[in-house]
Amino acid sequence: MQPKIGILGGGQLGKMLLEAGSDWDLNLHVLDKSKDFPAASICTNFVVGDFTDFDDVVNFGRQMDIITVEIESINVEALEVLENEGTEVYPSAQVIRTIRDKGLQKQFYRDHNLATSDFTLYSNSDEIKSAISNQTLEYPFVQKIRTGGYDGRGVAVIRSEEDLEKLLSGPSLTEDLVDIDKEIAVIVAGNGKDWTTFPPVEMLFHPTANLVEFLACPAELSAAQTEESQNLALRVAQKLNVRGLLAVELFLTNQGKILINESAPRPHNSGHHTIEAAVTSQFQQHLRAVLGYPLGSTEMINPAVMINLLGEKDHHGLVKYVGLENCLTIEGVYLHLYGKKETRPFRKMGHATILAENIESAKQKARRVKQDLKIVSQTS
Amino acid sequence: MQPKIGILGGGQLGKMLLEAGSDWDLNLHVLDKSKDFPAASICTNFVVGDFTDFDDVVNFGRQMDIITVEIESINVEALEVLENEGTEVYPSAQVIRTIRDKGLQKQFYRDHNLATSDFTLYSNSDEIKSAISNQTLEYPFVQKIRTGGYDGRGVAVIRSEEDLEKLLSGPSLTEDLVDIDKEIAVIVAGNGKDWTTFPPVEMLFHPTANLVEFLACPAELSAAQTEESQNLALRVAQKLNVRGLLAVELFLTNQGKILINESAPRPHNSGHHTIEAAVTSQFQQHLRAVLGYPLGSTEMINPAVMINLLGEKDHHGLVKYVGLENCLTIEGVYLHLYGKKETRPFRKMGHATILAENIESAKQKARRVKQDLKIVSQTS
Repeated sequence: MQPKIGILGGGQLGKMLLEAGSDWDLNLHVLDKSKDFPAASICTNFVVGDFTDFDDVVNFGRQMDIITVEIESINVEALEVLENEGTEVYPSAQVIRTIRDKGLQKQFYRDHNLATSDFTLYSNSDEIKSAISNQTLEYPFVQKIRTGGYDGRGVAVIRSEEDLEKLLSGPSLTEDLVDIDKEIAVIVAGNGKDWTTFPPVEMLFHPTANLVEFLACPAELSAAQTEESQNLALRVAQKLNVRGLLAVELFLTNQGKILINESAPRPHNSGHHTIEAAVTSQFQQHLRAVLGYPLGSTEMINPAVMINLLGEKDHHGLVKYVGLENCLTIEGVYLHLYGKKETRPFRKMGHATILAENIESAKQKARRVKQDLKIVSQTS
Repeated sequence: MQPKIGILGGGQLGKMLLEAGSDWDLNLHVLDKSKDFPAASICTNFVVGDFTDFDDVVNFGRQMDIITVEIESINVEALEVLENEGTEVYPSAQVIRTIRDKGLQKQFYRDHNLATSDFTLYSNSDEIKSAISNQTLEYPFVQKIRTGGYDGRGVAVIRSEEDLEKLLSGPSLTEDLVDIDKEIAVIVAGNGKDWTTFPPVEMLFHPTANLVEFLACPAELSAAQTEESQNLALRVAQKLNVRGLLAVELFLTNQGKILINESAPRPHNSGHHTIEAAVTSQFQQHLRAVLGYPLGSTEMINPAVMINLLGEKDHHGLVKYVGLENCLTIEGVYLHLYGKKETRPFRKMGHATILAENIESAKQKARRVKQDLKIVSQTS
């Protein structure tokens, strides 16, 4: 019998895990709050419940052989109970505990000599103000709340006294604002025995707006930089002893240093291009890893650019896709619409991967997709 | 709103249509007899019913905007009612009527000057024997029953008087037994406006057993043969006025002639490699076609070999996969297990596509898959 695999979280990552698992007829189950969520559209074993609720997670997990996650903000205490009862939990409760708290995450890097920018922990924003007053903290710095931030939320850049009103409340850390040449990401997989590392992906920023415009693979790095970033990501995964995927976001500084920004122990936005562009997709790799199957090749088949398809500014409500058919005329464009029922400004509603002979050509096609496809509300 | 698309048939072709449709969050529904069938594992809109039953098809179809099929042996009268009521039915009832009866199919080719071997229609096997007696029919010949045959069933090769006991009962046709150099297949797609043609696929037979061992793409053909086979398949699709896919199986004779063997107006076993090996998969192409969307590129990304994964001889009952993990260590192997609950000798339980630098290397890997993976019954 195929083991029963339970996924905590039914968003787009859960949906793409289900798509990958369908090829092998895996026995996948999902826990999340609503059958309106992306994964529910192709999940015939969808359990409605709250993955932050102790009882919901324990009750769901007790029916499974293996538990995995598509999100870190789940009930870790429940995972610990399940682990103690013998359920296989990948990533482990311990890994999730460490990673979902950016303070513990940074301490972990420091404790294991894994290169990351200097940081200090604070209980609240008053402590930060005191540190500035007594000159133990200097401008400019970055403040990150320890838990709950995502997609750029929960991060403040403080350059001077005028920025102090942007300080976030609650437990947080501050770290040096490093001068960044590039942001890259590397996804590692471990199946309990072997490790594989995908090639680095580069975040390409819009020339004027401070926004990631494209994710490109291969990244434009020297061979030494590629190797160093892959080795660093691999060391993080090995020190954490992750089973499944670990996506490691990295900075390449203007001084040529590679530093860990943060990690996520699950499939990641920076790996979506692997569905079409790599021999093994990150989703299949995650399933191989949690099942203890041999890991697949992480070789790239084609250069690729990935763009997130975001809800249009000022549009709230039931979703409508405008210009879809135009995109379908562009060779090498692979659209993934997640099936979220409602759009919101800048909500991730889908992504597109563009395969081409080279990154420049893929970027041109990606720009056409952005121009053609608009995700709006039906009432607009 | 996305149109509601109903698929008649919930086997592996229906399942792979659902997988393709999931990328675009299409609104897909399936009608078939049991939720144990492959498509049901990822279909949250599965309706239990019989696609050969008039009422079941009409009731299902009335809730849909578009109806398509993964099999020809459906209730055509119901499709005609739905067409008259304004439901879009692709392929049309008329196309299915013509194709599911091999007699009408052959007549269609003859009527439209589409190259196929000579044939004669008979009401029963006694008529065939009479034709032999009065010398209007000569050995050797092939007999095919007009309806209901599939996967080689419903075909008899009659070389001499001793073979007459193999004659099949019921309405049938006989055709010349042509000396075949190669068997190839070409899949055409029409969206009501434009047409695309996939590159020809070659059936590679086992050197001693009379069995297709591999399907390979690209086929080993001259440029002229490639063009002729694609043109012939395209003409068939255009004359039939197919909307959706048409898979055309062809013979390349020892005399270098290309003849139509038979056609199917739906996704086809000979197109499974397109999931990984072509820019657009046959399943996405079928959905584009029935939706009237622009058709995708049919360019190949990699040479590919496809093998069907069949139930082992002598094994009946609940399925078990042996050796799966070994296959996963071979780079470029893509397994598709359909999730059929029970195995039977030679039942199509899945397929594997192998991408490689060239066909020879892909064949070697395919042989390893065949050696490693055994599909057996759990009680064995």
